[in-house]
Amino acid sequence: MSDTAQHSEPNTIEDQMHAIGHAARAAAAELAKATTKTKNAALAAAAGAFRASAQDIIAANEIDLAAARKTAMKDAFLDRLALDGARIEAMAAGLEAIAALPDPVGQSIGEWDRPNGLRIQRVRVPLGVIGVIYESRPNVTADAGALCLKSGSATILRGGSESFHSSQAIHQCLIHGLKVAGLPAAAIQLVPTTDRAAVGTMLTMTEFIDVVVPRGGKSLVKRVANESRVPVIKHLDGICHVYLDRAADPVMAEEVSFNAKMRRPGICGAAETLLVHEDIVDSVLPAVVARLIDGGCEVRGDAAVMRLDQRIKAATDADWDTEYLDPIISVKTVSGVDAAIAHIARHGSDHTDSVITADQAVAEQFLTEVDSAIVLHNASTQYADGGEFGMGAEIGISTGKLHARGPVGLEQLTSYKYVVRGDGQTRP
Amino acid sequence: MSDTAQHSEPNTIEDQMHAIGHAARAAAAELAKATTKTKNAALAAAAGAFRASAQDIIAANEIDLAAARKTAMKDAFLDRLALDGARIEAMAAGLEAIAALPDPVGQSIGEWDRPNGLRIQRVRVPLGVIGVIYESRPNVTADAGALCLKSGSATILRGGSESFHSSQAIHQCLIHGLKVAGLPAAAIQLVPTTDRAAVGTMLTMTEFIDVVVPRGGKSLVKRVANESRVPVIKHLDGICHVYLDRAADPVMAEEVSFNAKMRRPGICGAAETLLVHEDIVDSVLPAVVARLIDGGCEVRGDAAVMRLDQRIKAATDADWDTEYLDPIISVKTVSGVDAAIAHIARHGSDHTDSVITADQAVAEQFLTEVDSAIVLHNASTQYADGGEFGMGAEIGISTGKLHARGPVGLEQLTSYKYVVRGDGQTRP
Repeated sequence: MSDTAQHSEPNTIEDQMHAIGHAARAAAAELAKATTKTKNAALAAAAGAFRASAQDIIAANEIDLAAARKTAMKDAFLDRLALDGARIEAMAAGLEAIAALPDPVGQSIGEWDRPNGLRIQRVRVPLGVIGVIYESRPNVTADAGALCLKSGSATILRGGSESFHSSQAIHQCLIHGLKVAGLPAAAIQLVPTTDRAAVGTMLTMTEFIDVVVPRGGKSLVKRVANESRVPVIKHLDGICHVYLDRAADPVMAEEVSFNAKMRRPGICGAAETLLVHEDIVDSVLPAVVARLIDGGCEVRGDAAVMRLDQRIKAATDADWDTEYLDPIISVKTVSGVDAAIAHIARHGSDHTDSVITADQAVAEQFLTEVDSAIVLHNASTQYADGGEFGMGAEIGISTGKLHARGPVGLEQLTSYKYVVRGDGQTRP
Repeated sequence: MSDTAQHSEPNTIEDQMHAIGHAARAAAAELAKATTKTKNAALAAAAGAFRASAQDIIAANEIDLAAARKTAMKDAFLDRLALDGARIEAMAAGLEAIAALPDPVGQSIGEWDRPNGLRIQRVRVPLGVIGVIYESRPNVTADAGALCLKSGSATILRGGSESFHSSQAIHQCLIHGLKVAGLPAAAIQLVPTTDRAAVGTMLTMTEFIDVVVPRGGKSLVKRVANESRVPVIKHLDGICHVYLDRAADPVMAEEVSFNAKMRRPGICGAAETLLVHEDIVDSVLPAVVARLIDGGCEVRGDAAVMRLDQRIKAATDADWDTEYLDPIISVKTVSGVDAAIAHIARHGSDHTDSVITADQAVAEQFLTEVDSAIVLHNASTQYADGGEFGMGAEIGISTGKLHARGPVGLEQLTSYKYVVRGDGQTRP
């Protein structure tokens, strides 16, 4: 936190952020009472505004892109920042998809009677105010704002400074949607400054913000997790494993390994390490490795693996702890499922791990003992995604164990309360 | 955090705590695999040890009591610290009651199939390692250790220094139970020092501790919440309200108000403020106030309330924000349910609030709009208790909105994971 945030003179960043917090709290109370129909109307109107304002959004995005090109940002960065007609249409469609999801607010998630006649109900309620801190991906402004709105919470969005103008243009469309539906504009606020002190202040605003969701690279998430006084739903790295057991079907081993790494090497559910039972290194592994290398993947292996193909590089200790997010995979020989589980416990990131085996006992041991948010049997780690689980859009994949684990969708963005109905009961 | 915790010389508090953390992590992996039968056997054997070692526990408690008397602790403090045969029997019975509760670990809390043939299951799993920081109430050593054990997590217990010898004697019985059942002794560890730096270190041990539960007064909970880098399940104060609506049944209003305050004035679910519809100040309130005052309760009211009885004192602004935990209640006139909800939003603590009315529309508005962990209609706030909800023993009542809200019992002390079973699916 910068010094700026530690004083409280008029018009400091701190004052500005507190005013945003106050407005968010008031909007949250309104939003908690909004009907599903009203929230969906806001999303539909915002989607319409995206389409109608596509040229304005692209013009704002051009300002950001021009500045980013001047500071010699990498191509991957520029690609994530850039918006065009297709990407704006995808944002609009994303909002409509969120409108089509069931509203979690008000859902009864348990109901029972007590012998004294009290009827107890657990009911989903909004979290209140959600802070979202993200990098220069303008589409997150739309996705995160829409998910929080549908879950009944007010949002304070703080995007990367390089996407400032794009995010503001997108935010205007969300505001339009809120106004059309008669909801308070402060239900989705965008921090109107690129001053980094604003983030430091947000992370201390426990009276105004119920939870902070950092969305972005490891350094952003770590900074937020280390600094925040507000509870954090965090998604750290995805060092995902595929364990090819002795009883793995050879074709399945090849198909799943290739898909787990190469379908999209840059997503958090991509496999980074292949663990292979020592008994199948000579029988099953050669085809798996050949498929990966021929498909453009760099393979780094231990000594037993390196024997198989001259193109395999030597893995170092650091490889077992690395999230490549690139077409690179490390391959290690293990003595069996116990050793595989021990390796994952030591080097994994509690994200997603898969076992390929026809041996049910091995599968059950792996599924039970691997302590990750998502464990799979005979399936690709690339399924680690709320949409693939049938849960709809998500704000991230939580690697923490509290509140939400795995995909964080609408339900995970809510809390609950106990509603107790009686007829005059007093406790003896 | 003291300076001690910031260096890492051999045998510092920090080293000691990290060794405890390491051992807890290893024990947690064992405990996660333990069967319900094994965990229950440990609890039963520990209960037996309490009974067999009652004299030793009482002797240890005498040491603590003698020291506390010398430092002139208040009677209420000494009473909470003191153990006798009946209290030891209650601890033993408490362990047996926890053994009798259903084991949450391994429970399927959702299961569905995807069109691609993947079968997805959400399964409850242990949190891992739970840190419990509490004051000098020796029975918490038994309760908290047993609840965490049954929920499959290892525990690091840090009790108040004035109960150090008592807690050690109780801890020995828990260790005995673990050993009899073949579970690692490190599954329940008691911090073996009264050095306050140990708490500071615990609160930074994110690699070893998954969640910290502070249990005790406001200053302890606030310190933990402010300092902790480990996620906290916290229970702050209980400023609970009863709103007597215009349509309140007069007899129910009197009975529930009296019970909500006076059954046990010192628990967090005790009512601290009575909100009264202005239309029933002269008709219903006089009997309510008389009943409270005649029953030994001090009543502090606003001007309209003070007219009713000379024994009523004037409430000051501070009263609306005070958790008395004593036979004192503040009474305020409000213009209706909207004003009551607004008062609770401003002065309440998100704990437990009740509305007394025969008007269903008023009741539903109150139940929906009051943003507290527990909201009741026509029932006493003293029901705010996991046991009364049929959930069994609890480690506290959470006033936070993340992870657990309201009573924190065995289920709330678990996390979940996604278990996905396929037959070779790869993501297109």
